[in-house]
Amino acid sequence: MDEPALRQLIDDIRAGVLDPDDAVARLRRLPFVDLGFARVDHHRALRQRVGEAVYAPGKTARQCGEIVVELLAEPGETPVLLTRADADQVAASLAVAPGGEVSRRGTLATVCWRTAPARTGRVVVVTAGTADLPVAEECLAVLRAYGFAPALVADCGVAGVHRILASADDVAGADVVVVVAGMEGALASLVAGITAAPVVAVPVSTGYGAAFEGITALLGMLASCAAGLTVVGIDNGFGAACAVARMLP
Amino acid sequence: MDEPALRQLIDDIRAGVLDPDDAVARLRRLPFVDLGFARVDHHRALRQRVGEAVYAPGKTARQCGEIVVELLAEPGETPVLLTRADADQVAASLAVAPGGEVSRRGTLATVCWRTAPARTGRVVVVTAGTADLPVAEECLAVLRAYGFAPALVADCGVAGVHRILASADDVAGADVVVVVAGMEGALASLVAGITAAPVVAVPVSTGYGAAFEGITALLGMLASCAAGLTVVGIDNGFGAACAVARMLP
Amino acid sequence: MDEPALRQLIDDIRAGVLDPDDAVARLRRLPFVDLGFARVDHHRALRQRVGEAVYAPGKTARQCGEIVVELLAEPGETPVLLTRADADQVAASLAVAPGGEVSRRGTLATVCWRTAPARTGRVVVVTAGTADLPVAEECLAVLRAYGFAPALVADCGVAGVHRILASADDVAGADVVVVVAGMEGALASLVAGITAAPVVAVPVSTGYGAAFEGITALLGMLASCAAGLTVVGIDNGFGAACAVARMLP
Amino acid sequence: MDEPALRQLIDDIRAGVLDPDDAVARLRRLPFVDLGFARVDHHRALRQRVGEAVYAPGKTARQCGEIVVELLAEPGETPVLLTRADADQVAASLAVAPGGEVSRRGTLATVCWRTAPARTGRVVVVTAGTADLPVAEECLAVLRAYGFAPALVADCGVAGVHRILASADDVAGADVVVVVAGMEGALASLVAGITAAPVVAVPVSTGYGAAFEGITALLGMLASCAAGLTVVGIDNGFGAACAVARMLP
Amino acid sequence: MDEPALRQLIDDIRAGVLDPDDAVARLRRLPFVDLGFARVDHHRALRQRVGEAVYAPGKTARQCGEIVVELLAEPGETPVLLTRADADQVAASLAVAPGGEVSRRGTLATVCWRTAPARTGRVVVVTAGTADLPVAEECLAVLRAYGFAPALVADCGVAGVHRILASADDVAGADVVVVVAGMEGALASLVAGITAAPVVAVPVSTGYGAAFEGITALLGMLASCAAGLTVVGIDNGFGAACAVARMLP
Amino acid sequence: MDEPALRQLIDDIRAGVLDPDDAVARLRRLPFVDLGFARVDHHRALRQRVGEAVYAPGKTARQCGEIVVELLAEPGETPVLLTRADADQVAASLAVAPGGEVSRRGTLATVCWRTAPARTGRVVVVTAGTADLPVAEECLAVLRAYGFAPALVADCGVAGVHRILASADDVAGADVVVVVAGMEGALASLVAGITAAPVVAVPVSTGYGAAFEGITALLGMLASCAAGLTVVGIDNGFGAACAVARMLP
Amino acid sequence: MDEPALRQLIDDIRAGVLDPDDAVARLRRLPFVDLGFARVDHHRALRQRVGEAVYAPGKTARQCGEIVVELLAEPGETPVLLTRADADQVAASLAVAPGGEVSRRGTLATVCWRTAPARTGRVVVVTAGTADLPVAEECLAVLRAYGFAPALVADCGVAGVHRILASADDVAGADVVVVVAGMEGALASLVAGITAAPVVAVPVSTGYGAAFEGITALLGMLASCAAGLTVVGIDNGFGAACAVARMLP
Amino acid sequence: MDEPALRQLIDDIRAGVLDPDDAVARLRRLPFVDLGFARVDHHRALRQRVGEAVYAPGKTARQCGEIVVELLAEPGETPVLLTRADADQVAASLAVAPGGEVSRRGTLATVCWRTAPARTGRVVVVTAGTADLPVAEECLAVLRAYGFAPALVADCGVAGVHRILASADDVAGADVVVVVAGMEGALASLVAGITAAPVVAVPVSTGYGAAFEGITALLGMLASCAAGLTVVGIDNGFGAACAVARMLP
Repeated sequence: MDEPALRQLIDDIRAGVLDPDDAVARLRRLPFVDLGFARVDHHRALRQRVGEAVYAPGKTARQCGEIVVELLAEPGETPVLLTRADADQVAASLAVAPGGEVSRRGTLATVCWRTAPARTGRVVVVTAGTADLPVAEECLAVLRAYGFAPALVADCGVAGVHRILASADDVAGADVVVVVAGMEGALASLVAGITAAPVVAVPVSTGYGAAFEGITALLGMLASCAAGLTVVGIDNGFGAACAVARMLP
Repeated sequence: MDEPALRQLIDDIRAGVLDPDDAVARLRRLPFVDLGFARVDHHRALRQRVGEAVYAPGKTARQCGEIVVELLAEPGETPVLLTRADADQVAASLAVAPGGEVSRRGTLATVCWRTAPARTGRVVVVTAGTADLPVAEECLAVLRAYGFAPALVADCGVAGVHRILASADDVAGADVVVVVAGMEGALASLVAGITAAPVVAVPVSTGYGAAFEGITALLGMLASCAAGLTVVGIDNGFGAACAVARMLP
Repeated sequence: MDEPALRQLIDDIRAGVLDPDDAVARLRRLPFVDLGFARVDHHRALRQRVGEAVYAPGKTARQCGEIVVELLAEPGETPVLLTRADADQVAASLAVAPGGEVSRRGTLATVCWRTAPARTGRVVVVTAGTADLPVAEECLAVLRAYGFAPALVADCGVAGVHRILASADDVAGADVVVVVAGMEGALASLVAGITAAPVVAVPVSTGYGAAFEGITALLGMLASCAAGLTVVGIDNGFGAACAVARMLP
Repeated sequence: MDEPALRQLIDDIRAGVLDPDDAVARLRRLPFVDLGFARVDHHRALRQRVGEAVYAPGKTARQCGEIVVELLAEPGETPVLLTRADADQVAASLAVAPGGEVSRRGTLATVCWRTAPARTGRVVVVTAGTADLPVAEECLAVLRAYGFAPALVADCGVAGVHRILASADDVAGADVVVVVAGMEGALASLVAGITAAPVVAVPVSTGYGAAFEGITALLGMLASCAAGLTVVGIDNGFGAACAVARMLP
Repeated sequence: MDEPALRQLIDDIRAGVLDPDDAVARLRRLPFVDLGFARVDHHRALRQRVGEAVYAPGKTARQCGEIVVELLAEPGETPVLLTRADADQVAASLAVAPGGEVSRRGTLATVCWRTAPARTGRVVVVTAGTADLPVAEECLAVLRAYGFAPALVADCGVAGVHRILASADDVAGADVVVVVAGMEGALASLVAGITAAPVVAVPVSTGYGAAFEGITALLGMLASCAAGLTVVGIDNGFGAACAVARMLP
Repeated sequence: MDEPALRQLIDDIRAGVLDPDDAVARLRRLPFVDLGFARVDHHRALRQRVGEAVYAPGKTARQCGEIVVELLAEPGETPVLLTRADADQVAASLAVAPGGEVSRRGTLATVCWRTAPARTGRVVVVTAGTADLPVAEECLAVLRAYGFAPALVADCGVAGVHRILASADDVAGADVVVVVAGMEGALASLVAGITAAPVVAVPVSTGYGAAFEGITALLGMLASCAAGLTVVGIDNGFGAACAVARMLP
Repeated sequence: MDEPALRQLIDDIRAGVLDPDDAVARLRRLPFVDLGFARVDHHRALRQRVGEAVYAPGKTARQCGEIVVELLAEPGETPVLLTRADADQVAASLAVAPGGEVSRRGTLATVCWRTAPARTGRVVVVTAGTADLPVAEECLAVLRAYGFAPALVADCGVAGVHRILASADDVAGADVVVVVAGMEGALASLVAGITAAPVVAVPVSTGYGAAFEGITALLGMLASCAAGLTVVGIDNGFGAACAVARMLP
Repeated sequence: MDEPALRQLIDDIRAGVLDPDDAVARLRRLPFVDLGFARVDHHRALRQRVGEAVYAPGKTARQCGEIVVELLAEPGETPVLLTRADADQVAASLAVAPGGEVSRRGTLATVCWRTAPARTGRVVVVTAGTADLPVAEECLAVLRAYGFAPALVADCGVAGVHRILASADDVAGADVVVVVAGMEGALASLVAGITAAPVVAVPVSTGYGAAFEGITALLGMLASCAAGLTVVGIDNGFGAACAVARMLP
């Protein structure tokens, strides 16, 4: 239900067309389409600007496809995305909704059927190591879906601090920086120290020894000595991209 | 051993038919059938009203079948259920005990051979996302086995709060509400805030980033700001259904 | 805002007295009183039947008193309670709202200013050890505030299993049983095995060796082999009482 | 060392005034003042825009004062702040640097000696409960130091969901929303669902039962079903304010 | 209720003196004395041989005294013990039950009013460091109460492996060895390797760096490479002594 | 090196046959055979009475076989055992050392080549559920290898407390009881309450909801309210059997 | 960029050949080669003496090969190593860079293409059990690549303490000792007690019962009662070897 | 027992002065003095070069003094140290052993009575923040006791990376670097990247938000992307100094 529909409803009450009991009931509800197994939230883009992406894990391949079709049925400029989909889910969704662009993320994929208009904010995605690239790729794919043209600066872990310092100007000049790092995640603190831009840290489940599937990087980023760093969940490249979409016009 | 059998035993003592030593020994025991690898507890329904379900994991396919047969051998109105059974266990059990109704739960299944008489309590099962459906399905299957006709309200996570508000009347009018939610599990708090009914929260091992296989949802539900919420173990749709069976006549 | 006020609002829309823009805004809100530091929720009792209790920790003594006064200002039959209050908070609240009944819980206290009408449900509170009594006391105080006359069966830990078996009839005959237990929390499983009533388990932060401030009892209750047991947070006697209030008429 | 000083250095090299060995050494360093026990980073504001605040815990009262004096010695518009200071640290600092404005945070305090010029971004700080106010106060104090005029919306926990819906317009119209919540932290997910603005979530160490000193709220916020939410450390109102200062012009 | 009383009950049933309903009820119960706040288990010594000790924490000083008096009222050879009592609890108990022998355990104490007859088993208690002595003292006091004359071998941590090897004959010749160790708890593995006797390991909450209040020692003992080692809870010298009392005649 | 060999060495020193330097070196060593990848400890049986079993995981199939052959090469009455061996390890070992008796433990196996002389101690192994049987089977196989004739009492979980009470006489009459239990592990506390014998508790990694791969059972057993219970590691049926071998003559 | 290149740069500034702006930018950077997905750090050997090894997990087989080729392209005496490579990664790397020597580590492998000149330090690697050998093998392979000729002393766990004492002279005479141990990791404490050399402890993810994938060994080593022990991450044989390379000339 | 005493013993055996049984017993022992509550290990310095320091926590003030006196009674060049002593322990020790030099560590102190001869190794201790100084002070005091003249570089956290780069030459030129850091501990990784010397990382229990009393820094250092970093326990400045004493001549 969009703004005009809401005003129509109020007019119906005034005109006596709508029974008061029904009005009370309807006014407490906002619009979505109920597929039985999912309530597709067409209104989310108005409320959150980031739209509703389809998170594939735990859904059947068929359910993925049906939700994508429903989202595409609603006209608009909001991206339509399927994330962390396995091969079956990708195939089933493309079968019913052809034309999606597929980005790899390890054995999983991000698929994008509709892209938002181009946006001008400068977004830099920095990774600590080569093994962090799959998570960075998910973030880049979602950023592109939201209209950004993000830059990637890869393999800048603090054990060779000159590597990130070599890209210091890019980092300092960004509107938002996303830092994708596993192991001890120290890169996020260092980056936040050389830029005035918002820094979104994404802990990654890479590493060994005591990396504990990303928990060490997560804790390190949350306990960072650099003020104003914010953090998303482990491996959550998607969430970091959505955070950027909220921050920039 | 039911009530009449117990009274017979007392009469035997009075009549001097039973030796005092034997009486002491027997009176300290309640009845079950010992299959060697399992002690099937026919008396449980009298004590707990919820009967003894067969939890499949860790049992051989053959053991599952033998226990089901033993449970069916005892007449009564208690449901006879096999839960979280894999394909082999389902097949072996149906081979020796035909006629069970199979409900899917991801790669596992719930099988029901005997259903309790219909009960009138209104039970609503709410899920936060589509990925929570397998756990909800187990809960629904067990509720139906106990004689309920539960309603399902799916995909109402708090990120689109209007979705649950749209079903607020159903939730408020229920006799018990079961909330099945992964990720941060916030839906349970919200639902408990809009109904006076008992709310049983089931944390689910879905989610990513920092969901930690359901631990985050579990902790969130236990720490809920909504008073009077109670919680069962992760993914324990069966337990939630049994809790409902205890709460309603 | 109660039912009549809501209907008046609808009438005002119909009569054109209320501007549509204002109507949209107001209809999306439910009533509460804003004290600046707290939004006192007079409507909660209608929605949840359990009312809003004042949880003292983290509030100043003065804030406790002001909220209690506000709650008492609303006529009705809902209990008015202050929980886990320290000596200062109790004194400050009784100074501005005389007449509250104080129940001890270790160094903290529960204060009740208004009690609900008597309810007939039989509630039994069982504790595993003497050290669990403070948490049980909080639960009993809140149950009495909600109109129940709960029974206490103390010190029945499973290491002396005959102690709980001696009270087996009381437990079996209850409408709800609350089990309050620290250490390994095993009593909850045993009690759930000898009653058909709902069992609400409260883990307690007593014990030593590997009790870990109640975490061991909490996990044990959640992993219980007894079907249909539900659990609240550690030391949450208040929450258990509220759960009972939801379960019984 | 600011931009002009850096250019002077390059000029000195060109003019042969500066020895190459010294130039290599100096060019690899950025400016700070070394107090022996602390290296006060005057350059931080240029790099990060958020300046260097003095985090009091672990420092002696005298050290706090000396660092504040050093920061004030450098002219500029960067805020000068002392955070989480106890009574001794506040007194010692005000003794050597009079004129600081003190904001309470429970038993600790934030002191601000210099405030940045006014900024126009609309910042809304939402709290779940009254017990979250001390952390919110720290955040508000730091936001004011950075030139913002933040609004506070207190006591909007999801157990009474109408309370936050009553402030939905304020939340939806903000440029950034900070959500401060303990217990299960569910409010952050709900708020992120009703605004398109960036949402910074601050988990708080309040709550009981299974709140575990803020860990439950932290995990819940990181695992949130609302896309684009970012999180800072437990009770870190300061960090959330710095994040806002990075996000807004 | 002892053996003769039980036989009398059976005789009453046979003679018709006892109503069958009452007989059923009584036969399901074993004897204890109900003090209201505690169910004192006089029967425990018959069942477990280790009697019921009074664990002081969480009990009021008065409750401690009343339970001790009740235990002493029952004649027998079972030890009567109060453990981990603070100064108030010790004083209150000795006031109503004079003559108890007090053993220190840091700020707490073990008090023994009645000692079992002397037993001949050779028990050796080994500690890793001087800081483990308080826990060892509790173990020694309880062992003496149970009639043993335990030997103490102190300060034999593995960092100076010759210290335990110097006592190797004592350890090898013992009937049971109790190893009390904090930090990494490695001494238990080493001791189990040089004796054929049962080894009971008690992790202690001493240590630093990564000792985590005894958790590291506990885990190390449970994961020991020495076969047949068994473990009790952290700091549980009492439990280790009771285990010894079960193992030896 | 056994006792006579040691005396010969001393005689050689006295006779001047052995150089003092060599004597010092040799006297500091006890005997083992070095296979390069393993130091087979023939002396262990003298020191520990439980011999050295071959723990298969992490060893190659060939290594398993070579160590078994080496152990069999030493005459004696100590059991020769291979534990938790997979199919390849079993086959490789039987190929070089025929005649071993294989006991299943889920997908793994215990193999016994040599059995100790019969011992008379009565050992009872109790399990909480059918799913605990594989761990109990390992324990039984090792007990038989050590010469015991253990009894098995299966499926006695506390949710049907009469099942263990029905075997109360067996449990009370045992010389040692081993309790094998997953989920919340409450059975160990209950058993320890009805027997005076040593109770060795084995937590099992079965269960769901909040069983956490046996951690919940482990913690519950360590925090048990029953005095004198001792615990081994998760699923460690082998360790429990070795503990029994230490306890009984 | 090496020392001469740096001096050339300074000369260019003095001569006016280099623009000041460019000079500032270039002087803040140190040299590496950017392959797009990786920034190969040729300078690391100068800074750290240990060179840059290629950690295979998370990299594609092709990426592994390309980085190895790039490292070999730089002349020098630094080892060129690929660690924890699976079969595909090994094959792809040897295809583009023939001649590497492969050392097994369970299913993974270490490959070495270039070895440093021989070094004279005596390094002893001690393992607690046969199952620790794969981690020790990685450590030995990297030590050999760095020019050492390390000795291996295998299977010396503390449960048979004479086994390590038999090698006490080797351990005492080493320049550095690396202790590789799983389960409770106690061997590290014991070894540190019998040598004056630096001891580097490597916890291993072997063991059962409560070994928790190496966490128990890790904690035990960090909490060791032996002063001056240092620790690396779980299974990190590579890191231990690099630490040795830092310690010895 | 030193080398000559050992040879005398062998001579006594050869001469027949010593009975063989006694010889066997004595040869298995190394020397220490048994104070009853402690076995003072005079031999440790010979074995470990680092001597035996007295760790005060858990010892009575009197015990601290007695052990110090015993250590001083043995002539030599080994340092005599009391660590983490509270005011009572310091006073009691200085009363019986005057002349110790006291270094503060927060509310605790290190006391040194005897210092080793001067050693020439260059040791640099780096801290991330001012709050890390107490742990660094302990490390410095112990290093000085071992004869080193360590340098301190304070307050170099990575959020202002130029601060550590300004001291890069000192760090690169050191023989060993100790990094003392709380919060996320990232400084250790960075330092290990700019020096070829051994780096010993000491996690510190400072920080907030998600520092978890040093666990986050500990994990970050163990999972570091910088090869060859080694780690000691949380706040263990003493252990780091002992590690340095092992590494340098």
